[in-house]
Amino acid sequence: MWVSRDITLGSRPRGFHLITREVLGELPELGELSVGLLNVHIRHTSASLTLNENASPDVRRDFRTWFDRAVPEDFAWTHTLEGPDDMPAHIKASLLGPALSLPVSGGRLALGTWQGVYLCEHRDRGGPRSLLATLWGE
Amino acid sequence: MWVSRDITLGSRPRGFHLITREVLGELPELGELSVGLLNVHIRHTSASLTLNENASPDVRRDFRTWFDRAVPEDFAWTHTLEGPDDMPAHIKASLLGPALSLPVSGGRLALGTWQGVYLCEHRDRGGPRSLLATLWGE
Amino acid sequence: MWVSRDITLGSRPRGFHLITREVLGELPELGELSVGLLNVHIRHTSASLTLNENASPDVRRDFRTWFDRAVPEDFAWTHTLEGPDDMPAHIKASLLGPALSLPVSGGRLALGTWQGVYLCEHRDRGGPRSLLATLWGE
Repeated sequence: MWVSRDITLGSRPRGFHLITREVLGELPELGELSVGLLNVHIRHTSASLTLNENASPDVRRDFRTWFDRAVPEDFAWTHTLEGPDDMPAHIKASLLGPALSLPVSGGRLALGTWQGVYLCEHRDRGGPRSLLATLWGE
Repeated sequence: MWVSRDITLGSRPRGFHLITREVLGELPELGELSVGLLNVHIRHTSASLTLNENASPDVRRDFRTWFDRAVPEDFAWTHTLEGPDDMPAHIKASLLGPALSLPVSGGRLALGTWQGVYLCEHRDRGGPRSLLATLWGE
Repeated sequence: MWVSRDITLGSRPRGFHLITREVLGELPELGELSVGLLNVHIRHTSASLTLNENASPDVRRDFRTWFDRAVPEDFAWTHTLEGPDDMPAHIKASLLGPALSLPVSGGRLALGTWQGVYLCEHRDRGGPRSLLATLWGE
């Protein structure tokens, strides 16, 4: 079975946001797979996806603090036309990566108990974000 | 062919550890694939997987030094309930990523000569770690 | 359909280089897939692959500046036998990752408008680089 599905996420502020339920809600076919993979790809270069702790909002706040410090707006950037948050957003996007390939087993995502999918929004006004989910298996 | 296999890794100290042989030892079916992929997923948010130099232990030691410096315990963390090594572990886990999708060709992992799979253990006492390996191809 | 193809990239200087067209030129079969995935894997531990902005060369220059600053040659490295650019190259390679799993839809890579594949060359004289592309789908 192969499924390819466009998913649009509404605008979120700069920061790290849990989207596991929203993504799974668009993929009812996942329940039919005994074994497979789900690739979730974000079609942007200033936002990214990662997997991390799905419980405490403190963790997501600390992600923002660390990444803003590690990749500061005040730096020797030459690409500044699109605003001070743009070039840091590109670097953060590549540090975290544009996609996740997640295992599926017994009709469910086979993640650890504490793993959730984060949308990493690196722009102040990134707007809606477009994902492509590809699901395959048997 | 699809194979889905749980693999448990014994406890290791904080640092970077080669696990290529241990993972492959659990996947004898890999030898039957002429072409395919192996997804190795770690079901935790304070440990990660990466691919890097499989020869010199100095490289793995330098990984630890750099990551401990780049993501220090002494920082403006708010999520500190689980100990000083916890929040840095979450950040390091996302910088390195929770999974590898490795090509298989001619019954073998088609890695470069110097590429080995690292378990990146970011906690001082992370305990045993659970992987899910998914293998598919023909 | 499964395709496994070795691709050799010519030597490039240290920095970030767009290779989308070069990679796709080696994979004419991609046009036959209505849905699938393309895994591009680099068989080295001192170079990596990422997806980022495919338009402005300033972005790629700023990538180099930030990564050289974040992972400096002047550091407490112990693995120095292969030159001052070697150990930083290993760290950068793992921060950015050795592979991309890219969605294919309607006979094309389903990337965002601004997404291009970067070869991230972290050595001063890395020489030719070997990729393995694996394509599958239906």
